[in-house]
Formats: sequence, structure tokens, C-alpha cells
Amino acid sequence: MQLVRIGAFEQEKPAVLIDGRYLDVSEHISDYNEAFFAADGLGKLAHILATKDLPEIKNPTRIGSCVARPSKIICVGLNYADHARETGAEIPQEPILFFKSTTALCGPNDQVIIPKGSEKTDWEVELAIVIGKKAQYVSEADAYDYVAGYCLHNDYSEREYQLERGGNWSKGKGCDTFAPLGPVLVTKDEIADVHNLSMWLDVNEKRFQTSNTDQLIFNVPQVVSYISQFMTLLPGDVISTGTPHGVGLGFKPPIYLKAGDVVTLGMDGLGEQKQTAVAYS
Amino acid sequence: MQLVRIGAFEQEKPAVLIDGRYLDVSEHISDYNEAFFAADGLGKLAHILATKDLPEIKNPTRIGSCVARPSKIICVGLNYADHARETGAEIPQEPILFFKSTTALCGPNDQVIIPKGSEKTDWEVELAIVIGKKAQYVSEADAYDYVAGYCLHNDYSEREYQLERGGNWSKGKGCDTFAPLGPVLVTKDEIADVHNLSMWLDVNEKRFQTSNTDQLIFNVPQVVSYISQFMTLLPGDVISTGTPHGVGLGFKPPIYLKAGDVVTLGMDGLGEQKQTAVAYS
Repeated sequence: MQLVRIGAFEQEKPAVLIDGRYLDVSEHISDYNEAFFAADGLGKLAHILATKDLPEIKNPTRIGSCVARPSKIICVGLNYADHARETGAEIPQEPILFFKSTTALCGPNDQVIIPKGSEKTDWEVELAIVIGKKAQYVSEADAYDYVAGYCLHNDYSEREYQLERGGNWSKGKGCDTFAPLGPVLVTKDEIADVHNLSMWLDVNEKRFQTSNTDQLIFNVPQVVSYISQFMTLLPGDVISTGTPHGVGLGFKPPIYLKAGDVVTLGMDGLGEQKQTAVAYS
Repeated sequence: MQLVRIGAFEQEKPAVLIDGRYLDVSEHISDYNEAFFAADGLGKLAHILATKDLPEIKNPTRIGSCVARPSKIICVGLNYADHARETGAEIPQEPILFFKSTTALCGPNDQVIIPKGSEKTDWEVELAIVIGKKAQYVSEADAYDYVAGYCLHNDYSEREYQLERGGNWSKGKGCDTFAPLGPVLVTKDEIADVHNLSMWLDVNEKRFQTSNTDQLIFNVPQVVSYISQFMTLLPGDVISTGTPHGVGLGFKPPIYLKAGDVVTLGMDGLGEQKQTAVAYS
């Protein structure tokens, strides 16, 4: 199934995307949130699709984040060797973790807001995992049981805030609109091999990132298992798995977004996003 | 007012503590959560206390976290000069920020669970701020307008996970039960000077931490304003302001918690906590 949320920011209704048609499930499902995933919402949704006549949403005005605000968005840093090299970092011996503030969440085609005074807003195409059930001390062998599905994420990063303002990375990762997620959450059964998905990212129609999830240093079950050793993952939580080479920081001199720039990105089976950069006002 | 939540984990009911009596407000208030603070819940609560006859909860079995699970728990690192020195770190030029997973939240007297295989679980008595309304790009002059009140926090930290496992600190900060909060949220009007609160922490009745919030490097309005430049703070969000010297990591050799150890801590006007360490099982 392909889960999608349609409507104005923070007023999205849950829907499913089938053969290019958006079917409204909001009469049956309140939202794609923690309670939904915890109560076998995916099973119920499949039953609804099989048994109910659902109204179509024609020409949706806005697509929101494909999941409602989760308890956390946790990211894996430097999880592609070529990206670690371009930023001058060591290849990590075990996953590097950091948080994005969940207030950064937005729709896949919303404008990305360059923070007030920021000059180093950068892009990162990533595969994100959505957790399906509460996970604590999960083994790699069992990790897929805790995965609901996958979606596309642009892990926007303000490099001055992240790297030059002291301390941890989260300062440059959680600005508003820095986590466009979607357009769709694709359930894991529809992804034949999550470790063979091509991805790309363009700025103003120029290709900057091209890679494939087969280049991940720590793969999906490793990442889910690893994080669950340090904290409890809740249903609906989002894990972003890291970005390949081609971010603005990696160029000499670096290339960062300015108002008017258009960022487009996509991944096999997970759809595409398009963000126009605007200055904070 | 002193807000308190009483009942089993994740089934707490909101109450107020007045003259040593716990008054149940759950008929009028669903919980002390984001929606409560966003909709002037504190104003409504004051009105309820003035106008309603409230049932008393006698001999409460358990006190929960004084606020419901927030969108984020964000912490300021190395915010007391003597603590920065004891850990061998530089005095920060601007606040160091990191996140605790909100699944770490628990009641002030719950057991602290030493994570599986952990040998470096450490304590940190801290003043926590609870945000009262949505804050973005707030000035220091206006910062108190965004504060609902204060509470006591023990920012438990697994030092191997935090410092020896690569990357950011959050890995060692978000284990289950690592964020006992409360017993009470004290509204800001009841704290005459938030920058003159004595605090202490004992392990097995031996004093380890003694300090005062007058030693904070970055004070309450500075911290609230600073964080709001990087991310949006939501009503009910928790900011923990850092710990003074006397953590286990600072000793030579370091001293860490083992099962059976009893940690007690307190702060002027904010009450006391008591946690017994247990091994994960």
C-alpha cells in the first residue's frame, strides 16, 4: 500500500494512492500516527481497501508528510562512504546517530525555508524507515518485523549551525521545513529489495546526487537493531538512513541554497519531491 | 501552581499539589500535554482551582512525569563551568544542545534501569524549563513569556554510549527511565528567582553534587531564546539546562551506578526525587 496525507499543514487527512488515484480513508482512520501503527493500522487499512467504497480526492491541493508527527526523527550520519569522504570525516565504525526536531516535518513539495540569516542551507536525499511497532533490543534477524515501510526524505541541513556553532549536529538539522517526508509511505511488502533503490537529487535541474541504497554502510536491519539498543523506538517513528555524496558542503567552494533555487529528488518506488527555497520572513 | 500527574505509567491523571494535598483535576483537564499548554491550560486550571470543589487523591501510589510526553526534550550540555572542567571539556562559547529521546521520560521516583550490559550509567541533577507556548526566534527580553514553569530533572547518561560509541551524545541520553521529571511542575510565578535555586544529589546518602542555578553559564532566557533560533519550541516541550560538577564521570577513577544504588536529589522549590537503580531484565 501507498499511504499519503492530503490537506493543509497540520490538517491533513489520511488517504491511499492506488493507480494514480487518491482515495480518502479519513472516515475510517483518524491519521497515520503512533496510535494507528500501534493498533495494526496497516492490517485494518488493507481490510478497508478490500471492503469499502472509498471517495476519491481529485486534484489534491497539497500533500503533507506521509506520516503524522512521530515521537522522534532519528538520523544516521555518514552512512555512505563517499559522503563521509567528501565531508572530510572518517568512515564510522558504528552508526552515528542524531535527532531532527519533529517540528521540521513538512510535505514533500512544501517550500524549504532558509533560516533567518542562514547562508549554508544544504540538501541530503535519503531513504527513511517508518517503524511499525515498539522496538527495544531488537536483533538484526528480527528487525524487519518492526518496519512498517519506507519513504523519501530530504534531510536539509544548515552547515554553519551543524558544524560551526559548537556541540552536536542537531542544531543544524531541525529548522522548520527541514524534513520533507513523502509523498508516500510505501509498505515494506511493496519494496522488493530496499537495498537496491536508486536515488537522485537535482538543484535547478542540475544533478548533484546519484546513488543507490546498495551503498549503505549500515543497512536497514542493522540500523533498526542498533538504535533499539540505545532507546525505544515507537510505532510511527522515522529513521533516516543517511545521504550519499553530492551535498553542497562537499564542493570546493561549497554550494548552498539561495531563495528561488528549486530542489528535486526521487528514489525508486518511493516517488519524487520538489521544494523551492524561500528566505525566512 | 504545582502540577503533578498521578497513576500508573502512561495512565497518569492530572492533579495539583496544594498544601500537601493532591487534588484531582482529571474531570476538567485531560492531561498536561501540548494541547493543554497551547490552549491557556494554566489559566483554565487557575480558574478551576478557584471555582470547583476537587476530589483529593489520598496516598497516591505513583507520581508520574509532571508533564505528558512532549514533542522534544532538548538539553544544554556543559552549562556549568565546574562541570565542563571536570569532564575535561572547554567552556562552551555558545550553548551546546542535544536531544533526549522522549521515551526516556518517567516519574521522579521510578526505578532507573541500567541498560543491558551498561557499566557507565551516571547522574546529573538539572533545572528543567517547560515551554508554555510556541516559540520561534524569541528574543532574550521576551523569553519568559514562553516559559510555563520549572521542574527537577535527573539527566541520566550512559557515558560509554555518549562518548565512546561515535558521533553525537544522544546515544547515551535517551535510554528508558533516563529522564525522571518532577515531582511537580511549578509555574514560573511561584519561583521568585530561577537563577538562585540550590540543588543537590546524593548516591547512597553520600553527597555528590551541590550547586546553585546562579552558576549557570547560559541562563533561562538566554537558553530559551537561543534554542528558538534553531528550531520551533512547542507548548509542553522540556529544556534541561545542564548539570553542575559532581557527576560520576568526573572522579578518578569514575564512579558509576550499579543495581541497588539509591539516587536522591532535590532543588529549592521544585521538590525531591528518589531512584533505585536496577539491572535491565
